[in-house]
Parts: sequence; C-alpha cells; structure tokens
Amino acid sequence: MDFRQLSETIARRSSVLCVGLDPDPERMPKGLAGHDLPLFEFCRQIVDATAPFAVAYKVNTAFFEAAGPEGWESLERLQAYIGKGYFRIADAKRGDIGNTGRLYAKAFFERMDFDAITVTPYMGLDTLEPFLAYEGKCVYVLCLTSNPGAEFLQLTCSKKGRFLFEQVAESVAVHVQSSRLGLVAGATQAEHLPLLLKAAPNSHFLVPGVGTQGASLEQTLSHFANHKNRVLINSSRDILYASQGPDFAERAAERAQVLHSVMTSWLKGDTNQTAQDFPEQL
Amino acid sequence: MDFRQLSETIARRSSVLCVGLDPDPERMPKGLAGHDLPLFEFCRQIVDATAPFAVAYKVNTAFFEAAGPEGWESLERLQAYIGKGYFRIADAKRGDIGNTGRLYAKAFFERMDFDAITVTPYMGLDTLEPFLAYEGKCVYVLCLTSNPGAEFLQLTCSKKGRFLFEQVAESVAVHVQSSRLGLVAGATQAEHLPLLLKAAPNSHFLVPGVGTQGASLEQTLSHFANHKNRVLINSSRDILYASQGPDFAERAAERAQVLHSVMTSWLKGDTNQTAQDFPEQL
Repeated sequence: MDFRQLSETIARRSSVLCVGLDPDPERMPKGLAGHDLPLFEFCRQIVDATAPFAVAYKVNTAFFEAAGPEGWESLERLQAYIGKGYFRIADAKRGDIGNTGRLYAKAFFERMDFDAITVTPYMGLDTLEPFLAYEGKCVYVLCLTSNPGAEFLQLTCSKKGRFLFEQVAESVAVHVQSSRLGLVAGATQAEHLPLLLKAAPNSHFLVPGVGTQGASLEQTLSHFANHKNRVLINSSRDILYASQGPDFAERAAERAQVLHSVMTSWLKGDTNQTAQDFPEQL
Repeated sequence: MDFRQLSETIARRSSVLCVGLDPDPERMPKGLAGHDLPLFEFCRQIVDATAPFAVAYKVNTAFFEAAGPEGWESLERLQAYIGKGYFRIADAKRGDIGNTGRLYAKAFFERMDFDAITVTPYMGLDTLEPFLAYEGKCVYVLCLTSNPGAEFLQLTCSKKGRFLFEQVAESVAVHVQSSRLGLVAGATQAEHLPLLLKAAPNSHFLVPGVGTQGASLEQTLSHFANHKNRVLINSSRDILYASQGPDFAERAAERAQVLHSVMTSWLKGDTNQTAQDFPEQL
C-alpha cells in the first residue's frame, strides 16, 4: 500500500486510526507469558480486535529489539500477520548513509514488507535515498515531535527566521519524491501545527501524542481539516492497555471503536461529535 | 569500560584504533556461507586478527538487522565475544523518548553489554536520558557527520550565528553528565573540525570517515593533538575487506597494524611517521 492507496482506504473505511503496537512485557496480561512468542501473541490479539476500526498499524521496533532474536522473530511474524489490507509502518526512526542505509532499507522493505518507515533527518536528506530506492515504499520524516526536548533543535530559529522543523517540512514538500514522503507531527505541538501545515500543505502526516501523552483527539483533528485523507492519528497505550486483564482485547476493541466513531464523524463533516458522546464505551 | 578507562587503555596500548564491524554478505569471503551464523563467524575472525592493534570495536547494527533473527543472534554473540578488554560501541543511531528510549537502552545495555551507543539528537536531549540511566555507560551523540547531506541541518546557521552542530557540541560539553557523553565527528569535515573541537574541548570523539570515505589518517589525527586520549579513529571497510579471499583475516591484521603504527607514532609525538612509511604492509 502506498500513500495514494492509504488515502483511498481512509475514505472507504471512514477512519484515520493508526494503532501503535508497543508491546511492553510489564503491562501485558500475565496469561501471555507462557506463549513461545508472547510479544507476537499479544499484538496478534490486538490486531484482531482493532482491525474493524483501524487503517494502519505502527510497529515500534524498540519493544521487539529489547527481547533479542525472539523479539525480532515476533516483529517479522507480526508484520506478515497484519497483512496488505492495512498501512504497515515500521516506527524505527532509522537514518544512515550509504551501505548502512541500504541495509536498514533491506531489513524493513525487503526481508520484511512494511509499507513505510519513520526516519530521523539529522544526518541529511541523503539518508532517505536507500528507502526511496524501493518502489512504492513510503517514508515519514521526523519533523516536530511530541516530547518536551523537541525544542532543542526543532524549534531552533535559523538565520532566515524560520524554525528548523519548517525547514525540514519544506524540504520534504518540494522533494522530487514528495509523493512518497510524509511527516511526523506530535499532537502536543498544537501551537506550531499551523506553521507546519503551511510549510507542507500537500504532505501526509503521522500524528502521535493523542491520549496518554496529553492531546485531545478532537482538537488534534481540527488542525487537519484540509488533510482529511492524508493524516493518520496514532493511538498506542490507550488501546493496548485499556485493560491488563484477560479482557484486554475486548477493551482494546472498545477503545478503538470510540476513536473510530469520532474520526468517522469528523471525516463526514459532523464536527460536533466528540468522544464524550460515547460515554458508555469509555 | 567507561571513558576514563578508555583513555587509560588508549595510553597503555598506544592505539586509538576502533575497528568498525559492518559485515556485508556480498563482500565477505565465500567460504563463510556454510556457517550457522556467518555474520558472527566473519566478525569473530576479524576481531581475533585485529585484537592486538585495536582498543575499540564499533558494531554497525544495520548489517545484523538485515539478516533477521539470526542476524540479531550474531549481534548478541559478537558483543559477548569481543569481551570487556575493548570499548564496545553499538553504532545504532537510536534516539527516542520515554518508554521507547528505555527499551532501546535495555536492548543494548542490559540484554547486551555494550559500553556505548551512538544516538541521533534530532528529538532533543531527553533522548539521552534512558541511556544515561545505566550507570557507567556512555553515549556518542551524532554531531557533524561525514556524508555530503550533513550540511542540510548540521550546517544550518542559527540566529545566534552558530552552526547547528556547534549548538549540539556545546550542549553535550556542558551537560551534567558530560563525562559520559561523546561526539561523532566525520573525518571528511576537516574544514569544520576546529570549530567543533573549540565547542567541546574536553569531550571524547568518535571519528569515522578515514580511508574509503576519503580522509587521510595523518591529517585527521593532526586535528586531535589536544585530544590524544579522547579520540577513536574508526576504520571499517579498509580492514574488513582488505581481501575477500581466504586470507581476509591475515590481510585485515596487516591493515590494522599499519594504522596502529601511525597512531602509536602520533601518540608518542613523532608526527613525521605516516602510513607511507610502511609500504610493504599496504
């Protein structure tokens, strides 16, 4: 699936929900510990439960690396399990040059079959090339992140009076491969989102930070009124750990359904609908 | 091993050689393909051959990830094989926040026992915290990299008239944990190295870019005259692929010995010795 197909899928399923798969062994239900590949098993059940509501899954590679070779096997199996009907993002925040970049691309786009990867831009735009060498694959460039430390570089003001994140966004927007490049924009950066959207008015966006990290879904969506088919709102912990008991998958589905309902209303233009309209499901 | 012990090791072994382990299946000797873990086997033989000349090994995680779970197993075995007598760097260029950062740190400092990791600073200095939470472990922050695209952000000029890389270097130099923070500085950036060293006069440096990437060892060393026990010069491909035949380990040892000889002379203050003084070994 590429960005064009993602847009079609968003319209067809009336959802911009990206479920973030960050399987934390300390927060997973105890009953899964006996499985051969507990990280895979947990995520598999989350995927099954949320599939009716999601259009994308974002797999956070750190959680798999921390489990060693078994974790990496879970990652590979999970990518294959999700399947081609969903936009599959490797949230790996890689970024390196030459041979090293080519091997990262090989890992995520050839050995595995992710549709997109997140990349950090500090080393420069040549770090995008190894990923873009794979036809049809997409790259989300970290631009304005949701953490407090984001200001250290991203909000540095350049000589030309622009923030560094604007420079990143503009470079992605005018890139010769811009149709396969998106931007990561933290929902907690509401103050700066208008500037960012102005710098890259036609780009795709991946938006973490809603829910546990503090931003409200409704306010976040309101920024993307002109990007309805080009935005993914990520939710990880709110869905994954809605319950830590044996009903975790059922509760995850309920949470995903609530988010999906708000998104559907927003996509159809009914901006008065909020998550509070579904209290029985919260 | 921490930075203080690294400095002692540099002085004791008269070497600043860091061997970069980037095992590329396409360039490895054909005879290794039959091994269960060919990446591990290749690197093991390189480590054995270069151990008399090196003080550090930098393991490039991309090359292992591209081989899936087996590659990750090779990575874990390799880290353990190198052993505590050498400064072991995970060249992973990670960098993320909160829970994700903690899991990266767990992977490289707890599940494996690397002494240091390379980290990209785009998301901010809070990305360092999960790594620094491990007592005694060190972090090299990407600062001025050796690739052409480095200018995109690193040579952006901020409002205060400084390059962005200077801002990164100064922040690392004054960080409360500065004794455990180093900087990555590409040898190909000779023009800017003086500014960088001025911004972080007491920091440790990891320097790639000598050899295949174009910078000469002698010229690079000349920049670090005041950092003799606080610099590592990395060499990867020049050593690893000195031969692609069955004599690869022997040729790797010879190449490492040449670099070591130049480094020893430099550390002892004999600046007239160059790699050209050892032509029979080249």
